[in-house]
Amino acid sequence: MLNLVTPTDSSWVSRALVGLDEVLIDHAHCEKKAASTALSLLFRYPERRALLEPLSKLAREELQHFELVLRHLDRLGIRFHRQLPSPYAGELMRAIRPNEPERAVDKLLCLSLIEARSCERMKLLSEALEDRTLRALYAGLLTSEARHHQTYVDLARAIVPDADVRGRLRELAKHEAAVLAASPEMPRMHA
Amino acid sequence: MLNLVTPTDSSWVSRALVGLDEVLIDHAHCEKKAASTALSLLFRYPERRALLEPLSKLAREELQHFELVLRHLDRLGIRFHRQLPSPYAGELMRAIRPNEPERAVDKLLCLSLIEARSCERMKLLSEALEDRTLRALYAGLLTSEARHHQTYVDLARAIVPDADVRGRLRELAKHEAAVLAASPEMPRMHA
Repeated sequence: MLNLVTPTDSSWVSRALVGLDEVLIDHAHCEKKAASTALSLLFRYPERRALLEPLSKLAREELQHFELVLRHLDRLGIRFHRQLPSPYAGELMRAIRPNEPERAVDKLLCLSLIEARSCERMKLLSEALEDRTLRALYAGLLTSEARHHQTYVDLARAIVPDADVRGRLRELAKHEAAVLAASPEMPRMHA
Repeated sequence: MLNLVTPTDSSWVSRALVGLDEVLIDHAHCEKKAASTALSLLFRYPERRALLEPLSKLAREELQHFELVLRHLDRLGIRFHRQLPSPYAGELMRAIRPNEPERAVDKLLCLSLIEARSCERMKLLSEALEDRTLRALYAGLLTSEARHHQTYVDLARAIVPDADVRGRLRELAKHEAAVLAASPEMPRMHA
């Protein structure tokens, strides 16, 4: 359902628990970045009316999650700070084709895969964390991530036929798995 | 209360009514741009914890207004499209001092003045428009703009003392009036 071709290696969860503070800070940055990316599409594609409201709503929801994670950081006494991001999203998006409408489709599908991977990993965190409040946070958020995954796939379908979307999503999912396999081991949501 | 040093010339309203479609489209762009600018401050000042939640909430509200204006455009059969923006915001922000924390303070105060000017002009539109639904739209939005004006001033106060904020706000308000006086006559919210 999430269209990922490889599951997360169990070693990621162990590493995430060891570097939990950094993973939580990265998570807040990811929500902010997700909002910013959705918003950037509003600037790039103002004439694609079908995209505008879903992307704006999606950005608002990411910002709500950003605020939510900040409050958890406060509760745990963790100070939010700048971080070196994992190379994951940048490497993933190198597969985006340069011409329209392929570029828009690929960007939306890359974003759908990021949401899918977040969803998968939030499920793992919701099962492995000791802090009950954090378990509940991730159990709550993973359903939004799954929904966002679907929204991005649906938006790609508003641009090209379903068969094209499905074919390209399979290709990009393979690329996503390769990017993740080559990622350095950092305490991040996507590493 | 809004800290503006000159009122809008009555000729702006007449011009806005003549070029209403373009003004409405510009308004949607302004809400999107306001969200984007608030979000950009989350990236620039992650360590200024006091700024993060208010800016994130403000960005969410601007996006809600963006969606609201889009629905009005749909209702009126106006197609949202790219537009040449008025030079107002760019010219206003040329007064921002380069070093921190003055840079952050000036940016916040420039944003407070943009919100103030929007508020003042939305009041004029709410009184002058023939379309009742649009009158109600602007009557509803102007209170948000006034609140956003105050939020930006308060955020500047989280960085430097109140006396510094008040002094600088007076200077920037004079600059804002000069920028507006020199602005070309375009069908825009800030021209």
